[in-house]
Amino acid sequence: MSEVLSYGMVGGGLDGFIGAAHRRAVNLDGEARLTAGVFSGNQEKSKAAAEAFHIDPKRCYESYQEMAKAEAQREDGIDFVVIVTPNYLHYEMCRAFLEAGIHVACDKPVTISFEQADKLQKLAEEKQLLLMVTYTYMGHVTIKHIQKKIRKGELGEIRMVMAEYPQGWLAFEDDFGGKQGAWRCDPKKTGRVNCLGDLGTHVENLAAMTTGLKIKRVLAKMDVIVPGRVLDDNDSILVEYDNGASGIYWTSQAAIGSDNALKLRIYGSRGTILWDQEESEKITEIHADGSIVKLHRGYSSIDPEAGKYARLPAGHTEGWLEAMANLYQSFICCIRAKKEGSFSEDMIDFPDISHGKEGLAFVEACLKSNENGNVWVDLQEEK
Amino acid sequence: MSEVLSYGMVGGGLDGFIGAAHRRAVNLDGEARLTAGVFSGNQEKSKAAAEAFHIDPKRCYESYQEMAKAEAQREDGIDFVVIVTPNYLHYEMCRAFLEAGIHVACDKPVTISFEQADKLQKLAEEKQLLLMVTYTYMGHVTIKHIQKKIRKGELGEIRMVMAEYPQGWLAFEDDFGGKQGAWRCDPKKTGRVNCLGDLGTHVENLAAMTTGLKIKRVLAKMDVIVPGRVLDDNDSILVEYDNGASGIYWTSQAAIGSDNALKLRIYGSRGTILWDQEESEKITEIHADGSIVKLHRGYSSIDPEAGKYARLPAGHTEGWLEAMANLYQSFICCIRAKKEGSFSEDMIDFPDISHGKEGLAFVEACLKSNENGNVWVDLQEEK
Amino acid sequence: MSEVLSYGMVGGGLDGFIGAAHRRAVNLDGEARLTAGVFSGNQEKSKAAAEAFHIDPKRCYESYQEMAKAEAQREDGIDFVVIVTPNYLHYEMCRAFLEAGIHVACDKPVTISFEQADKLQKLAEEKQLLLMVTYTYMGHVTIKHIQKKIRKGELGEIRMVMAEYPQGWLAFEDDFGGKQGAWRCDPKKTGRVNCLGDLGTHVENLAAMTTGLKIKRVLAKMDVIVPGRVLDDNDSILVEYDNGASGIYWTSQAAIGSDNALKLRIYGSRGTILWDQEESEKITEIHADGSIVKLHRGYSSIDPEAGKYARLPAGHTEGWLEAMANLYQSFICCIRAKKEGSFSEDMIDFPDISHGKEGLAFVEACLKSNENGNVWVDLQEEK
Amino acid sequence: MSEVLSYGMVGGGLDGFIGAAHRRAVNLDGEARLTAGVFSGNQEKSKAAAEAFHIDPKRCYESYQEMAKAEAQREDGIDFVVIVTPNYLHYEMCRAFLEAGIHVACDKPVTISFEQADKLQKLAEEKQLLLMVTYTYMGHVTIKHIQKKIRKGELGEIRMVMAEYPQGWLAFEDDFGGKQGAWRCDPKKTGRVNCLGDLGTHVENLAAMTTGLKIKRVLAKMDVIVPGRVLDDNDSILVEYDNGASGIYWTSQAAIGSDNALKLRIYGSRGTILWDQEESEKITEIHADGSIVKLHRGYSSIDPEAGKYARLPAGHTEGWLEAMANLYQSFICCIRAKKEGSFSEDMIDFPDISHGKEGLAFVEACLKSNENGNVWVDLQEEK
Repeated sequence: MSEVLSYGMVGGGLDGFIGAAHRRAVNLDGEARLTAGVFSGNQEKSKAAAEAFHIDPKRCYESYQEMAKAEAQREDGIDFVVIVTPNYLHYEMCRAFLEAGIHVACDKPVTISFEQADKLQKLAEEKQLLLMVTYTYMGHVTIKHIQKKIRKGELGEIRMVMAEYPQGWLAFEDDFGGKQGAWRCDPKKTGRVNCLGDLGTHVENLAAMTTGLKIKRVLAKMDVIVPGRVLDDNDSILVEYDNGASGIYWTSQAAIGSDNALKLRIYGSRGTILWDQEESEKITEIHADGSIVKLHRGYSSIDPEAGKYARLPAGHTEGWLEAMANLYQSFICCIRAKKEGSFSEDMIDFPDISHGKEGLAFVEACLKSNENGNVWVDLQEEK
Repeated sequence: MSEVLSYGMVGGGLDGFIGAAHRRAVNLDGEARLTAGVFSGNQEKSKAAAEAFHIDPKRCYESYQEMAKAEAQREDGIDFVVIVTPNYLHYEMCRAFLEAGIHVACDKPVTISFEQADKLQKLAEEKQLLLMVTYTYMGHVTIKHIQKKIRKGELGEIRMVMAEYPQGWLAFEDDFGGKQGAWRCDPKKTGRVNCLGDLGTHVENLAAMTTGLKIKRVLAKMDVIVPGRVLDDNDSILVEYDNGASGIYWTSQAAIGSDNALKLRIYGSRGTILWDQEESEKITEIHADGSIVKLHRGYSSIDPEAGKYARLPAGHTEGWLEAMANLYQSFICCIRAKKEGSFSEDMIDFPDISHGKEGLAFVEACLKSNENGNVWVDLQEEK
Repeated sequence: MSEVLSYGMVGGGLDGFIGAAHRRAVNLDGEARLTAGVFSGNQEKSKAAAEAFHIDPKRCYESYQEMAKAEAQREDGIDFVVIVTPNYLHYEMCRAFLEAGIHVACDKPVTISFEQADKLQKLAEEKQLLLMVTYTYMGHVTIKHIQKKIRKGELGEIRMVMAEYPQGWLAFEDDFGGKQGAWRCDPKKTGRVNCLGDLGTHVENLAAMTTGLKIKRVLAKMDVIVPGRVLDDNDSILVEYDNGASGIYWTSQAAIGSDNALKLRIYGSRGTILWDQEESEKITEIHADGSIVKLHRGYSSIDPEAGKYARLPAGHTEGWLEAMANLYQSFICCIRAKKEGSFSEDMIDFPDISHGKEGLAFVEACLKSNENGNVWVDLQEEK
Repeated sequence: MSEVLSYGMVGGGLDGFIGAAHRRAVNLDGEARLTAGVFSGNQEKSKAAAEAFHIDPKRCYESYQEMAKAEAQREDGIDFVVIVTPNYLHYEMCRAFLEAGIHVACDKPVTISFEQADKLQKLAEEKQLLLMVTYTYMGHVTIKHIQKKIRKGELGEIRMVMAEYPQGWLAFEDDFGGKQGAWRCDPKKTGRVNCLGDLGTHVENLAAMTTGLKIKRVLAKMDVIVPGRVLDDNDSILVEYDNGASGIYWTSQAAIGSDNALKLRIYGSRGTILWDQEESEKITEIHADGSIVKLHRGYSSIDPEAGKYARLPAGHTEGWLEAMANLYQSFICCIRAKKEGSFSEDMIDFPDISHGKEGLAFVEACLKSNENGNVWVDLQEEK
């Protein structure tokens, strides 16, 4: 009988959203079990969480450093760790677990500087460990299908990319969106960006991984709109790709009525593809002859390399957790292969530290553009 | 530390869809673990499944009878069983586990006759055991919201109910829809109905539980449309409710292009509610003044008794598995309460054998109507 | 220089909706000009209307009988008359103009009995005059496209037809929907039906003309739902076609939130077509391989015999008036051809008295079914 | 009896689209009749058109200069002229008719330079003549409603404006989109812009007139994407308004699958309004409490100053021609008032030369921004 893997978590206490989301995504397929963690900086809260998650109290640690060390020494220690803390903590935590020889799945943005991300990449390579960055939307069957289609050239040359990600939860002056809103709008905890880090990195990653285009340069206007905010909450970004194509990225947290409205539109010389996260099971493909074809997750016309991740027939809706679970499915599969000695790079079907690094390069170029009066900034070669 | 419950499964081998769906729905919240089962009538297949599910081979049984007996005797025996076999097997299996003192979750339709369902109800009551019937769609937050709204009278008097559930997967003569299609179209395995049993019972349950209306009488036209079929694959049903309201139910398996297109429209004297399973996170409410209001799962205006089941913020899509998981959440919560002695009837927030029975009464009345030339048939009082 | 035709109108005063709609539809292409009329039973109102419409006061008549006689005698008399009065007046008015040798366009339902419609058909044939019945929706480019597609067999054998036409404007007890609502709900003015006559005849006509199917028999449940009404305001109708296909028609005036929600869904053995009047420029075609194709009015893939009616490029929305104008375009073209002696039957691309008659046969069969307890009633051969 | 006005047309021969569109829009309400014109530079074509339009051959002129002169001298001369020629001809033509004392309706962009537009404005003021610029979309009831709502402050402070207008008809290298495409892509006939002049001016006008915001500065990236083009066919524009709000405008002619996809999204501190030209009868309003309300043209909640333009009940779709007809309705009403001496400025409910001028200021600033490497350019005060 093959073994169920075990994993730990840093962050993700009882009152947060993202930790529970990761736990459920891992739970879904029953291939890994939560067995250790530091769920809060507050010991009591951490213990309460551990109990709620049915975890042995001995494996509820006082610090992530202690946890990394102790789990690395246990024979039945965790196979991987999930890091779901505020952004500014990611770097040190990732480092600690990688140094302890433990695979890492870390929320995005993976660090708060390109330099940190670069160091993590080198460390992970040196240690031959996996470092997944959980850009959830890359897990969608539909997104994987779009990625394959474009790789096969079915859109011809990509000409324009329109990508946007407005939300409305931070639109009101006196409402900081609860605990999460608080740290996201606090420069000490998010780095120098808020909206661009939280939403813009998703947009950048999604556009990059689906189209395969590299960004040549960006021109960013980063607004602070809602009275009382100190960091950007509305970002307009012009993008030029290495093939000469043009893009516009828009992210906002002040767009009343936008829930989680990530949308991607890719226009090529031979067709167009439209995708809307809030209807994530659908793809609109428009062919050169003008025919508009709707595709649903679960259809036989979905690329089999994408379609293999489907858990339910078409019309039986899958959602956000399945997308996250698909990332974990490939991640866990790679970890098993590592354990069995059968791993190869082409098994990786999730965003990793290289994508995390690209996200930071994008953020830093946007910041520079904005600080210099909305001028073009190259994403330099050395990055 | 509170315990994770353990459960067993009958049916649900490696090549089926519904067993995997139930397992994932239970997995989602991490409150119960699969520890025993008979996953196939074929021993080898059953063992292969048990291994894939990381189950102790000793608890992979040769028959459901053996399983019921053995698990009842183990100190760490299963807390409940999930039955996901073809319809004609449900009755005997439910009976075996209830008699062994084990709570049961059974797929719908719960049996193939009203009489069987009635017997199961009596047995469950006698044994004081829970018998959940997994009408998945009742688990949606949006459906629970609609149910609460109507109970509070916000639609006024219900006047019309339009409910439909077309699918297209069995539309082609030479394509029996794989293994599932085969048994569903085989009178020996499904009872005397196909489409009406599979889809019509969902429609009946959803309309009944949301509106709170009782059906007075039905007039059914059950068609056998696709050449080669012997059982109904398209059903048109006129419904009259006890308050005088009118309904039309339509179910079909021959509607090319319909994935899983369950739709419910409820018209009252003070407003209208529209719901579409394929966009299950959305509700359209139309008020008497004509204003059309769109509500999404996750909004603060969702009834809190419904909204408490949400796992993600609005715009982070939930789907079919979450609906099923919500049924299990309440079911497991009730089982824990039974174990702790704190159970009370009002904790039940899932369809049970009483709803399963109503489904069978509906099916039998439709069959009678159809056999007698599409005449009105009362759902008799004695039922 | 070819002449602009001239026409007259009976009904259609300043406070009604349908007369203005017909006038604008005729205006659109500038091929006929309103020059005579009786716009109201009230002389003063009629004169006021005539003045507003820039009509010579001498051609504003006291009665339709006088108008028919006078216009028939003028050298520059009207080429056709448009009749837009309450249903119960249609028969005598149509007769008067046909007898005077004037072509007629009459609103639907063309009469209040099958017998009347039959007489008009005979009279029109005898006089060799055109009698158009303005089933507006047949004028849509998209509907004409659907009709052609089905004639060419692209859906295979038609299996199911789902057609519905709910409105909400008469949903409230104390609100009779203004002047129009008043006569529509008054048995003296509408005949024995309300909702079925107003909406059901549209549904019947649309389904018949698009699919080409003949109705074999109907089973109708006609409800009087809103307190205070005496005629049907909600109708549920099961239909069996001569090829064995099944249909469900639903019409209602009590469906709060439904504006003018005529929808048609046609399911064949090789595909499906969906159409929604409120998005009348779009067609959804679903092919046997499951591909869902969206077509817009104006696309090159629209059947040229349908597409020739388009006035604007795709995306420049056309609507209800254009549909009505398309009927008049063919009607006026036929009248010109009659005048020039070049007319042939195959030039007729509008619903005529034969379709009007079918509508009455349908209504009468439904009434009989309902009166006899919702039993099947054949649409007899003799009709 | 009040008189029907008469009007002339320059351009708009038998093979064009926009002339026919204007004629039908004027026809719709029957308040003005086409009686004179120069329909083509080619005399034969012009005569053929005149005949098809049922116009007296004597009033089909050889040149617009001759027409202006002759019609000004006739007692029954035209009340206004409609100019629907390529952009570069607008200026001289408008001037000729204004100088002859004739009101003008001219297609947009009204000229090819700000300077020309400025001169026309002065001339019209001097002559006390109306000069309508037919920005069609301002005619929509829904757009007028949005305009009123925002004026009343219902969105609070406007924060972001997202406006886009992609089309796909010029996406292919070897397909110049017929005659129209040819002149639009020819610098001699369109001025220095193509896409920005044709689509960008609509976007600018719509955003300006609905929000009431003035543009402070723009930053434009104007791409030439399709091989073989010499003028812009894809434009990305960052906008900063005088109140500090941010906007993004996107226009394209290379977006395969976009028919005429003008969309406007306005985000304020108290709510959001969404509008989509291809579903021009609908408005989505999102209030500060998160409620999403759908409004349809024809509803009683539509602002009465907007709603008065509706010709049909809700659900009976109106479209592009009705929008254009609404502009003409107000234009003709103003001309009648001028004739009767009852005119006042507040009767103007259509875009005029002042809006045309703003459009040119926008275009020229964008051109300057693009030529200087995508830098911010102020729309100077003097303009």
